[in-house]
Amino acid sequence: MDTAELIELGQQLRVDSVRASAAAGSGHPTSSMSAADLMAVLLANHLRYDFDRPAHPGNDRFVLSKGHASPLLYSAYKAAGAVDDEELLSFRRLGSRLEGHPTPRRLPWVETATGSLGQGLPVGVGIALSGKRLEHTGYRVWVLCGDSELAEGSVWEAAEHAGHEHLDNLTAIVDVNRLGQRGPTRHGHDLNAWARRFQAFGWHTVEIDGHDVDAVDRAYGEAVSTKGQPTVILARTLKGRGVESVQDREGLHGKPLPDADAAIEELGGVRDLRVRVHEPADARTLHSVPTGRPDLPRWDKGEEAATRDAYGKALAALGDAREDVVALDGEVSDSTRAEVFAKAHPERFFECYIAEQQLVAAAVGLAARGWVPYASTFAAFLTRAHDFVRMAAVSGAGINLVGSHAGTAIGQDGPSQMGLEDLAMFRAVHGSTVLYPCDPNQTAALVAAMADLDGVRYLRTSRGAAPALYGPDEEFPVGGSKVLRSSGRDRVTIVAAGVTVHEALKAADALAGEGVAVRVIDLYSVKPVDRDTLRRAAEETGCLLSVEDHHEQGGLGDAVLDAFLDGRPAPRLARLAVRTMPGSAGPDEQLHAAGIDAESIAASARLLVEQSIAP
Amino acid sequence: MDTAELIELGQQLRVDSVRASAAAGSGHPTSSMSAADLMAVLLANHLRYDFDRPAHPGNDRFVLSKGHASPLLYSAYKAAGAVDDEELLSFRRLGSRLEGHPTPRRLPWVETATGSLGQGLPVGVGIALSGKRLEHTGYRVWVLCGDSELAEGSVWEAAEHAGHEHLDNLTAIVDVNRLGQRGPTRHGHDLNAWARRFQAFGWHTVEIDGHDVDAVDRAYGEAVSTKGQPTVILARTLKGRGVESVQDREGLHGKPLPDADAAIEELGGVRDLRVRVHEPADARTLHSVPTGRPDLPRWDKGEEAATRDAYGKALAALGDAREDVVALDGEVSDSTRAEVFAKAHPERFFECYIAEQQLVAAAVGLAARGWVPYASTFAAFLTRAHDFVRMAAVSGAGINLVGSHAGTAIGQDGPSQMGLEDLAMFRAVHGSTVLYPCDPNQTAALVAAMADLDGVRYLRTSRGAAPALYGPDEEFPVGGSKVLRSSGRDRVTIVAAGVTVHEALKAADALAGEGVAVRVIDLYSVKPVDRDTLRRAAEETGCLLSVEDHHEQGGLGDAVLDAFLDGRPAPRLARLAVRTMPGSAGPDEQLHAAGIDAESIAASARLLVEQSIAP
Repeated sequence: MDTAELIELGQQLRVDSVRASAAAGSGHPTSSMSAADLMAVLLANHLRYDFDRPAHPGNDRFVLSKGHASPLLYSAYKAAGAVDDEELLSFRRLGSRLEGHPTPRRLPWVETATGSLGQGLPVGVGIALSGKRLEHTGYRVWVLCGDSELAEGSVWEAAEHAGHEHLDNLTAIVDVNRLGQRGPTRHGHDLNAWARRFQAFGWHTVEIDGHDVDAVDRAYGEAVSTKGQPTVILARTLKGRGVESVQDREGLHGKPLPDADAAIEELGGVRDLRVRVHEPADARTLHSVPTGRPDLPRWDKGEEAATRDAYGKALAALGDAREDVVALDGEVSDSTRAEVFAKAHPERFFECYIAEQQLVAAAVGLAARGWVPYASTFAAFLTRAHDFVRMAAVSGAGINLVGSHAGTAIGQDGPSQMGLEDLAMFRAVHGSTVLYPCDPNQTAALVAAMADLDGVRYLRTSRGAAPALYGPDEEFPVGGSKVLRSSGRDRVTIVAAGVTVHEALKAADALAGEGVAVRVIDLYSVKPVDRDTLRRAAEETGCLLSVEDHHEQGGLGDAVLDAFLDGRPAPRLARLAVRTMPGSAGPDEQLHAAGIDAESIAASARLLVEQSIAP
Repeated sequence: MDTAELIELGQQLRVDSVRASAAAGSGHPTSSMSAADLMAVLLANHLRYDFDRPAHPGNDRFVLSKGHASPLLYSAYKAAGAVDDEELLSFRRLGSRLEGHPTPRRLPWVETATGSLGQGLPVGVGIALSGKRLEHTGYRVWVLCGDSELAEGSVWEAAEHAGHEHLDNLTAIVDVNRLGQRGPTRHGHDLNAWARRFQAFGWHTVEIDGHDVDAVDRAYGEAVSTKGQPTVILARTLKGRGVESVQDREGLHGKPLPDADAAIEELGGVRDLRVRVHEPADARTLHSVPTGRPDLPRWDKGEEAATRDAYGKALAALGDAREDVVALDGEVSDSTRAEVFAKAHPERFFECYIAEQQLVAAAVGLAARGWVPYASTFAAFLTRAHDFVRMAAVSGAGINLVGSHAGTAIGQDGPSQMGLEDLAMFRAVHGSTVLYPCDPNQTAALVAAMADLDGVRYLRTSRGAAPALYGPDEEFPVGGSKVLRSSGRDRVTIVAAGVTVHEALKAADALAGEGVAVRVIDLYSVKPVDRDTLRRAAEETGCLLSVEDHHEQGGLGDAVLDAFLDGRPAPRLARLAVRTMPGSAGPDEQLHAAGIDAESIAASARLLVEQSIAP
């Protein structure tokens, strides 16, 4: 398109943003209007995309990091012929694909859900990594950011990652409209303040007037031709541009325009320009279909191994069998054992350094391109990426997250390194799967099973070694459990997972020596949970005692209770969990201090048996 | 101290770090040895601190952001006479104050718990803000960082915050030893790479050889004399400095030295230098003692108000009564209503922009200086700061966090903006309090009550208005609940909080019209939970139905179950919660779609009543 057409297209995107928000009675038209010219030029002259084939491997990828500017995105879809005017005006209504913030669950052209600011660029880096290091296709990644969201540290994790990886297939476009929700940003219209920051992180920078379509056009061309560095285009814009009564004014964020009809008139009225978006380049398909069962590592029963060791070896073996498996780590791969995969498959390993938000975001980006990512760090430090995990669920992204060094059992390093909140965090994520193995063969089987699940999958591993409880051919379905001790005389059921399984077995043996039979369930699938087995144990033993190396809220104990929420009478229930703030101590001392070791379990079980005899 | 003495002191700190780690059989001596000269010069020539009076308002504040270098910190304490050699050698043992990573719960000289990297500088910014904007004393804040942790985005949130606030009382010292845990950092010994980044964020930078004690001494002097900007000292160092077999080598992170005796000999043997640390400057006490009951806002029964509105007004009133109350917000104060406080008490309000990690870190820093901070953003976005909240609990920090726009009830904005995981997140934080009011008077009372609690306090507020259910003089003890409907004929108890209380009351009225009496409990104190009232309801009605605008894991329903984990038979239990991924829709449509509106509650209650009649 030429200058005049681009100006007209920008006005159309503004008008349609105003119309959609007016129809909805809510939304962010002013945030859309500032970026309308940036979007118009991209759509008409630079984006290579086939809206009929969103899965085309050669398509450019567009991420609307400032997700609240969804009216602009949907107006662009309309201009591209992907949605019609009627659908545009269904914006924010129940059942509409056009949500307040865009999600790929509903719209095939959306790469990742946005709306939590500072996430689009980090995920865009993951997509660009795929393009550059794995797919070797010529697609570009365009991320439209707001200026307010540059306050998020995650943006600078992404900037560092992209700069270090020389991602010249990535362009960030910053709509510097100087106004956040509440008021002015820290740097207002000082484009150079932002340029200095991005330059320091290794980016090529371009500063322009974001309403000068020719300047925008040249800037995109410069981004495309810049080699060896990502480019950021810093565009000075006005929020609400084009409508005098709202332009560049505070207090109008996230509100429909006061007088939509007058605004539309001021913008030159409704238009119906159609954009012929450039075709994507030819590109090969991403990777071959998985090739079958991996040759997983095997441990003999009784052989000592840490589940984190089993994770590393199993993941490497899975990578042998499946070329769609990739791994990422937060600079602790010697601890998480992701290093085993990294050595076996260096081309599919991504070192993310100590930047857990970027670690998870890159995994989301890689998943968006069809890879099956496994991202690992200490369980404790995955809390750093909680908002990214939450948004991954909104995206419906299929990612595997692996948290090592779970619980007090890590020992001397103390509470800062102990994952004691991770089960609660991951269980509350919509559509998640939460797995917590106690044994190396079990770990290996679950690592392989995770690959084919939907949504966010979490595996919790342990630091210390323990004897293998299962043989290498045992099966561990997700949603299942293992009954490790059972008889017709069981008086209590101990429900454990991970490190506490071993303690529960010791307690059961001690109690057996006293003539007290107890059942032991290894609840390795924390979510979904094996309700049938738990129900049966409750019926047969009358009482369930859960034991977990985790704070008492939201973890294994609460998972057990999921089985008893159907309005039928619940059994007798008791819970052992970490109720104190640990300090430094040896692993066994920690379990004892937390009251989750064999001795504590046996004592609690005895008490429960006595209670059941009492009148 | 002069050059020769400083060199000796540095060697002593190395030797003692090696000795402590050897005695413990674990720890991070090599990470301590790189920073030993930096610490020696600071302790001997620049820090102003009275170890006998850690609460002295004029004390400088030292934060060991690279918390794993705790042997160095404790060796410095020994050199200052604060701990003796016997205690030094208790490092990492059960019961020792000298934990693997330092915490203020155990040691009075520690400002904040570290060990999750990238947190020391953000919290240091909070302390420096207090010094600069509130206390107006001359103390300095010194933060010793590792180079690896500069990959964390939180460091750049802090850098931006400190630069913008011109915190010239803050000095970051970066021990650039080029090696992380797994291997080399992104920038190795390229000090200028880091300098460019900090300069871009408005910092004064000094690049030095971190083992040249005179250069270190001059750098500290330069930091002290630099006005209008924070200073970062970028010090080139060698990990394991001074012991040839470990110096600057990979694979030795977090391990005691292979031959401690030989290393100590190579370092010149054990010394016992004592440092006379400079006295703190005179300083006034921080702020006056709270002055009594605040004059809280009042609403008449039936008057419509959103709990977020009540929050803003109550906080402003609390600020009138107590000059130790401060507020922070993440650039959404018009939504959270923290703006009411900001307008009333601008000198005690801190705008943190869209940087939730820094928001919480600054609150932790302010709490460390004795203030009572209230930090607010959308409930959904507090997940961004989960790791900081976790570490605040390790610190034992007293902070109030307020999450607005909770749940599906926000309506059209969609799932990215909905807090649906926040209750799970905050309940699992050790020692936390979790409050969820449904009414403006209740909100006001809880806002005031929070100020005097220990640990992490969370208040969940709602976007939409609802009629006041309580009068302005009603009391709402933390740990209590309110029974809103009750009779001797109740067949089911509905347990609700926040927005679902209003739905539960509508359901109860509908059921009453059908002749079915149900009890309704407003469980505004989600943690601690009112076990007695729940127990009594279970005994009297036989069945509990919890209803929450939150995912089904870790929230209100699990809190209810806390009352029934004592090994006695549990009642019949059922739960309504958000089980789907919402899209955009109106608030009432959202509650209906999630199955937590009055209609859904009534339908479930009917079913439970029928079940109880069934044979």
